[in-house]
Amino acid sequence: MSQRITGVLSPVVTPFKDDLSPDTERFVRQCKWLVANNVGLAVFGTNSEANSLAAGERMELLEQLVEAGIDPARMMPGTGCCALTDSVRLTAHAVKLGCAGALMLPPFYYKGVSDEGLYRNYAEIVERVADERLKIYLYHIPQVTQVPISLKLIERLLKAYPKNIAGTKDSSGDWNNTKATLDAFAKDGFDVFPGSETFLLAGLRSGGKGCISATANVNPAAIHELYAKWQSAEADQLQAGLDKVRGVFQKYPMIPGMKAAIAHWSGHAGWARVRPPLVEVSAEQSKALIADLGQCGFSMSGLKA
Amino acid sequence: MSQRITGVLSPVVTPFKDDLSPDTERFVRQCKWLVANNVGLAVFGTNSEANSLAAGERMELLEQLVEAGIDPARMMPGTGCCALTDSVRLTAHAVKLGCAGALMLPPFYYKGVSDEGLYRNYAEIVERVADERLKIYLYHIPQVTQVPISLKLIERLLKAYPKNIAGTKDSSGDWNNTKATLDAFAKDGFDVFPGSETFLLAGLRSGGKGCISATANVNPAAIHELYAKWQSAEADQLQAGLDKVRGVFQKYPMIPGMKAAIAHWSGHAGWARVRPPLVEVSAEQSKALIADLGQCGFSMSGLKA
Repeated sequence: MSQRITGVLSPVVTPFKDDLSPDTERFVRQCKWLVANNVGLAVFGTNSEANSLAAGERMELLEQLVEAGIDPARMMPGTGCCALTDSVRLTAHAVKLGCAGALMLPPFYYKGVSDEGLYRNYAEIVERVADERLKIYLYHIPQVTQVPISLKLIERLLKAYPKNIAGTKDSSGDWNNTKATLDAFAKDGFDVFPGSETFLLAGLRSGGKGCISATANVNPAAIHELYAKWQSAEADQLQAGLDKVRGVFQKYPMIPGMKAAIAHWSGHAGWARVRPPLVEVSAEQSKALIADLGQCGFSMSGLKA
Repeated sequence: MSQRITGVLSPVVTPFKDDLSPDTERFVRQCKWLVANNVGLAVFGTNSEANSLAAGERMELLEQLVEAGIDPARMMPGTGCCALTDSVRLTAHAVKLGCAGALMLPPFYYKGVSDEGLYRNYAEIVERVADERLKIYLYHIPQVTQVPISLKLIERLLKAYPKNIAGTKDSSGDWNNTKATLDAFAKDGFDVFPGSETFLLAGLRSGGKGCISATANVNPAAIHELYAKWQSAEADQLQAGLDKVRGVFQKYPMIPGMKAAIAHWSGHAGWARVRPPLVEVSAEQSKALIADLGQCGFSMSGLKA
């Protein structure tokens, strides 16, 4: 078995051309920049507007990354859809390309579904993909999906498929849930990634494996620095620095705000585009964001248009 | 311009084979039975498990219905997806096949999205499909999507695209919202369909055009009878009879319950299958449902395996 993916991962924001089609060239360039900053690629996450992309669009973009020479061992694409058949198709495709893992939302249309139904969803995917290389990371983001991944569900899946159920991204923002997940399953080789660098240090101190965070799109090097130095004397200070930058981004709509920052520092205005139902930040908001970031000494160096 | 679709429509439940692939033959047969009972086909709705089907699966099923000789003027397929590109693809396909309309969910992954973002979603679809035959029915089901269709959004869309924005299905279960929608827009030729026969009579008395209801899958003839006789002296009595049957189904999980009833009366046990994340009703629940229905004199005659 190959080594599991660890460290800091970014749910890579997806650039769009003026007709709202994915801007593959810029996407590849952004992914290379992230990898060069030691950040892994959780492409097709919530912050990637993945659910605003058709399955075919996601597959095409993933193929382009691999063809561009980026190591799939650094990739954990989102492959969980509402439709079982879409989830199976995207997951099998990611495994075939050699991706380190698949980050899987539960089917999120129906609300109030049972753990039995969610178990069957994931079990069917494992059975149908039928590949021992498959590493599933369960994606818990109840404030968006309204469909939580319970500890009991993790326990049942891990027992049934210990080789394929590899970990979780906990984006609940509820440290108590992250800690409970770590305490219950980290010892069994179940890799827990908090969904924000806010909990990167606390997570690592409790047996976590890194984080998968929106702001790793814009602040990758600094977040990786904490990951690399978490056992050093300066760890708490590094965490405080990360929290400050994240705090600024959280004052604005997260996805359009990050895209506005990338547009600003890359010099390519088109980076600010989002697909409906999201809306870009206004020129005033964008200016205020950049000014706020400047006040805490933040900039994105090394970005090109 | 052709005449608009009106009356009672069913969000047709989708039968699955034992490998969970759609059972096309049974689906066509069920649709023919519904049409023979004067019920239109709102295929690929919430009760159809449409979001548990891939876009390609939906297109294939729709083509099979048309090839089987069912009049597309009786069809209002669900075509609203999270991804703009999927919505455009499914909607253009439905228009090309001659369907009477397209029932469109808002993109439902992100929560707390703005009316501006939802407007852009629907506007892009209208602009990209670019066909005057396109009739969009906005699908308001906030308890599931968590993304409501506001009256202000309807007003703006109707003003921008009076030929293409044709109506709404209001599945909120909130009569005040349905009434407010009717009062605001029915006079402009905006066709309001309550999402349950519970409000069929009240809706018709306020200028509504029928209803699109789960239980039209199982009780089509009786619901159509009220539609046909809503101005007669027996209308309130007919409404009370419908409410009684619906009340029984509402005691059980709606989609698996209806499928269990169809399985029972068709004699084909496979009809009870659902795709994850839904779970079929237990044998005990199924038995209790059939007994409950028997007590109010309900049966599904004319069904075949």
